[in-house]
Amino acid sequence: MEINQGKLLAQIDSPEDLKKLNESQLAQVSAELREYIIDHVSIYGGHFGASLGVVELTVALHYVFNTPDDQLIWDVGHQAYGHKILTGRKKQFHTNRLYGGLSGFPKRTESPYDAFGVGHSSTSISAALGMAYGSAHKGEMQRQHIAVIGDGAMTGGMAFEAMNHAGDSNKNLLIILNDNCMSIDPNVGALKDYLTDITTSHTYNRLRDDVWKVLGKISKFGPNAQEIVGKVENSIKSFLLKQSNLFESLNLRYFGPVDGHDVNHLVHVLKDLKDIPGPKILHCVTVKGKGYKQAELDQTKWHAPGKFDKITGEIRKSVPTEPQPPKYQEVFGHTIVEMAKEDDRIMGVTPAMPSGSSMNIMMKEMPDRAFDVGIAEQHAVTFSAGLAAQGMVAFCNIYSSFMQRAYDQVIHDVAIQKLPVVFCLDRAGVAGADGPTHHGAYDMAFMRCIPHMVVAAPMNEQELRNLMYTASLHTEGPFTIRYPRGKGVMTEWRTPLEKLEVGSGRKLHDGDDLAILSIGHIGNYAVQACEKLEQEGLSAAHYDMRFVKPLDEALLHEVFSKHSRVLTVEDGCLPGGFGSAVLEFMADHGYQSKVVRLGIPDRVVEHGEQDELYSECGYDAEGIRTAAIKMLDPQVVFQ
Amino acid sequence: MEINQGKLLAQIDSPEDLKKLNESQLAQVSAELREYIIDHVSIYGGHFGASLGVVELTVALHYVFNTPDDQLIWDVGHQAYGHKILTGRKKQFHTNRLYGGLSGFPKRTESPYDAFGVGHSSTSISAALGMAYGSAHKGEMQRQHIAVIGDGAMTGGMAFEAMNHAGDSNKNLLIILNDNCMSIDPNVGALKDYLTDITTSHTYNRLRDDVWKVLGKISKFGPNAQEIVGKVENSIKSFLLKQSNLFESLNLRYFGPVDGHDVNHLVHVLKDLKDIPGPKILHCVTVKGKGYKQAELDQTKWHAPGKFDKITGEIRKSVPTEPQPPKYQEVFGHTIVEMAKEDDRIMGVTPAMPSGSSMNIMMKEMPDRAFDVGIAEQHAVTFSAGLAAQGMVAFCNIYSSFMQRAYDQVIHDVAIQKLPVVFCLDRAGVAGADGPTHHGAYDMAFMRCIPHMVVAAPMNEQELRNLMYTASLHTEGPFTIRYPRGKGVMTEWRTPLEKLEVGSGRKLHDGDDLAILSIGHIGNYAVQACEKLEQEGLSAAHYDMRFVKPLDEALLHEVFSKHSRVLTVEDGCLPGGFGSAVLEFMADHGYQSKVVRLGIPDRVVEHGEQDELYSECGYDAEGIRTAAIKMLDPQVVFQ
Repeated sequence: MEINQGKLLAQIDSPEDLKKLNESQLAQVSAELREYIIDHVSIYGGHFGASLGVVELTVALHYVFNTPDDQLIWDVGHQAYGHKILTGRKKQFHTNRLYGGLSGFPKRTESPYDAFGVGHSSTSISAALGMAYGSAHKGEMQRQHIAVIGDGAMTGGMAFEAMNHAGDSNKNLLIILNDNCMSIDPNVGALKDYLTDITTSHTYNRLRDDVWKVLGKISKFGPNAQEIVGKVENSIKSFLLKQSNLFESLNLRYFGPVDGHDVNHLVHVLKDLKDIPGPKILHCVTVKGKGYKQAELDQTKWHAPGKFDKITGEIRKSVPTEPQPPKYQEVFGHTIVEMAKEDDRIMGVTPAMPSGSSMNIMMKEMPDRAFDVGIAEQHAVTFSAGLAAQGMVAFCNIYSSFMQRAYDQVIHDVAIQKLPVVFCLDRAGVAGADGPTHHGAYDMAFMRCIPHMVVAAPMNEQELRNLMYTASLHTEGPFTIRYPRGKGVMTEWRTPLEKLEVGSGRKLHDGDDLAILSIGHIGNYAVQACEKLEQEGLSAAHYDMRFVKPLDEALLHEVFSKHSRVLTVEDGCLPGGFGSAVLEFMADHGYQSKVVRLGIPDRVVEHGEQDELYSECGYDAEGIRTAAIKMLDPQVVFQ
Repeated sequence: MEINQGKLLAQIDSPEDLKKLNESQLAQVSAELREYIIDHVSIYGGHFGASLGVVELTVALHYVFNTPDDQLIWDVGHQAYGHKILTGRKKQFHTNRLYGGLSGFPKRTESPYDAFGVGHSSTSISAALGMAYGSAHKGEMQRQHIAVIGDGAMTGGMAFEAMNHAGDSNKNLLIILNDNCMSIDPNVGALKDYLTDITTSHTYNRLRDDVWKVLGKISKFGPNAQEIVGKVENSIKSFLLKQSNLFESLNLRYFGPVDGHDVNHLVHVLKDLKDIPGPKILHCVTVKGKGYKQAELDQTKWHAPGKFDKITGEIRKSVPTEPQPPKYQEVFGHTIVEMAKEDDRIMGVTPAMPSGSSMNIMMKEMPDRAFDVGIAEQHAVTFSAGLAAQGMVAFCNIYSSFMQRAYDQVIHDVAIQKLPVVFCLDRAGVAGADGPTHHGAYDMAFMRCIPHMVVAAPMNEQELRNLMYTASLHTEGPFTIRYPRGKGVMTEWRTPLEKLEVGSGRKLHDGDDLAILSIGHIGNYAVQACEKLEQEGLSAAHYDMRFVKPLDEALLHEVFSKHSRVLTVEDGCLPGGFGSAVLEFMADHGYQSKVVRLGIPDRVVEHGEQDELYSECGYDAEGIRTAAIKMLDPQVVFQ
């Protein structure tokens, strides 16, 4: 569908075009860009509030700086829609986040204006600083390096690590703190309060009040006292804004706060900053969802609302005619509350994903027992370990790809100490439209190599509930439960909680010609494949292994004793994954069946709907069926 | 050897005993404890400077707090010798760091006084905060939770993440910032300057100067002006110390700085702090190596000096009669400089391990091209990615177990973008006396599952040099080179640099009865095993595979075509590791040889000399020989 462009925006296909405008036109082009984004997301869906919040900043940055020679990095990157539209991708923007289309995040291979690929939070300062050192080494001293980072991302430890390094350097680095008090959910933590504090000038005001109080007491010094105070105040004010500041503490020159929606003021400020060498930070206050009323009012809901009616603000949801199964995350969210009511040891921890993980249900019902610790995966895991050391059972819910952020903490603080922390890895397997940065491809490989770790994956809602319950009773060390983004398969999912034997799988279907071993939700496709194969006269046994570690060895002895052909299926990377664990069992026990492994291949899988990616990777129902038929074909030699 | 104990220390076997002393005796017991540590390390070796620096703090903490009910966490933990000696482990302390003996770090299974296991940096605040929440949930509101963290560890991002959460809580948490300006090497970064700044009161002084300057100009207000300033100053001072502080910005009540070697003052301060609820930080200034002159003067050398002559300060080094091979780290340190002189793109990055990685050689010779970024592995990797995005080839040297800290950055910022960063993983495999927290056990498993990643391991010095050279020319993505702690095998190691084919292994020995596939340094044991087997009439082929990824498929086809028995040997974890990769190849190509895998078993391997651990795990020369013989025994059925 063609989207109307405003008069000015229609002329802009690159920052060069933008620079042809005069400053008095920038407010209008910002308004047109905002309208374009609203129109676009209302029709095609995608991230919304974040991009609306940085419209003026985006226009100002490309107007002032010499992109792409000056390098601009958008932390996380879901706020970069305006950036993409202004940098030559307006025409393709309707393919945003679609299979084969534009990425929802900046991506180096997509455009020279995307200086650094993003997706996870808090990386931009490190990357920009590295680039600044690289430029300096090449003698490109005029080149600017700009990291735009939200106040949520600023709570991630690596942003602090980078500032500690940056403050010790003299390189051209401009950090723009996009302060909107929000991640996907409202921000938490002391930093948020601090930023509010300096934004509303409480610090300065409080000092002034203190000084006035003293001076009130010394009125005996005569009428000149008040005038002295005026002078003193001025010197203190400039000093305080420079010196009493968290960022100045780290030797970053601090400027602001400025109104992030006044594009002309931003242009002036940025021009000034361009001439100031060395590392500096501009504190820019914005409103997430700016310019679309509903999005301003409910910023979490409008982070990525899906398609909506622009006029009424009604989010378009297909109304199913039949009851639908819940999302796995919802099963998690309700089940942890249900369990916590019975078991006083259970606590919940999420690093800034209350709504994404459904931990918000527990946070609402049991605010003292469920914690959003900010964008801080490392802290989330070791904090959970601390809870466990006190006898609690912490359910630490982290998206699979974000768990990569806390890998050392899982090994060092949890597993080595055999602490009973339960890791619930949401968005495991291919994650869909968010693409490569968000695919939870590697967790089975990187978790199963850790001693004392249990790794499990439920095939449906009931299994998830039972695994959660089993994990809560497991005192021998950590327990990982991975499950995918999106819906399960059971409309009636509130089944009674049942303790499973750790390391027990189950046979779902008997068969003679080959055995299919699946792990997790993807097993539902194996069920379909078996049905199809049966119709075609082929008899496949199907085992839902349930545990990657420990493997159900009794079941595997049965499989390998009986079957000379075994097909493993997983929604995870092939190197080192579930299938690899099965091969290890086979070798360790001297079996010699033919094993074919289906899973995420050893390459970067791009974005698209989950079904599209399952199909691309060859482990949807049809892929499994095809692989089985190929295995059974005597013409095919596996060598 | 019996070590003389001072009169007071001789009576102390627990903090209960310490508490029987009166305050006037604490200086003496501190002196005795310090002497005991000096005597001990001079005879037995171990970490030194860090423990000397916290003697008074250790005494004061156990004197004031009700350990182990109050929970005390030593960040990193190599400063905890005094703690161990005072908490019932004096008699066993001579077994410190020895195989089967005490751990060099606090360890939960060793003592109830070790509230949380440590080893890696920056974990203590997260753990203590988790414990504090756990205590609060159990209604134990009087229990104290204390994290002792160095200023080096404070640069690690997760410490910041934890403070951001702590400042938002009201739990009983005392952070003691042990500020000695040192990690193993001198600290770097803006935070260090800031701490020096507040310690020497520059901040306050500068403000006062500013105020005076203004007041100088307003002398026309009469003689009372100076007196007004005095009053204003007082109000400002108390305000400033509270409000203009980085930690107060995060809503942590800040106290200090105090002299960390005045035990009586520490006792008073800690008693006061005990009564102040909520999160707080005590800034304690100490001297690393305090009380042993040589250690104070060269703090890096005396971090862990080995055994030494207490009187002369001479470090005892066995003087070998023959030339010795260098440490792998030294080969790295010299080779990167040699290469960088020829290749302007080469840069070096280390997170706070200049001497441990030998990056200090390059930092000295090429200060503009080699960077110590602080204890900040995450930043180190993404900073390297930023350099790579500018066309540089960054050699990012990180100990294998510390690389776990930056796993997401490797995937998200480097591999997905195919940036040519070279990861040199020192201390790969079992790390020796530092034990489980420091074993580099998992890197082959967690690196080889990442797309675009090359994973290699050199068998000797020449191979390391050639792999580094090859990596510097590899533009297709990241390249990991893992090598162990300690010495190689070549005294003449400055061989000409030679480019290898990526993914090429080499056959070192022909044989008919079985094939041994080794990866890395451990291959030298396979050589010995082959020799021994030959003497015993058994003929083993030996392949140094060199690359875990990509595997040398041509070589593997040769192996599996010829051999029905294959033994894989790796100094890394068995699940998902090198042997597992070989099994994947075998399955994918339909081979059916018997494969036995030797490596680090799937459990936590404790500390000890590397040789002792190789033997325990069964992959020293004798272990390889035994496994080969067992494989060839027709009586043994592998099932």
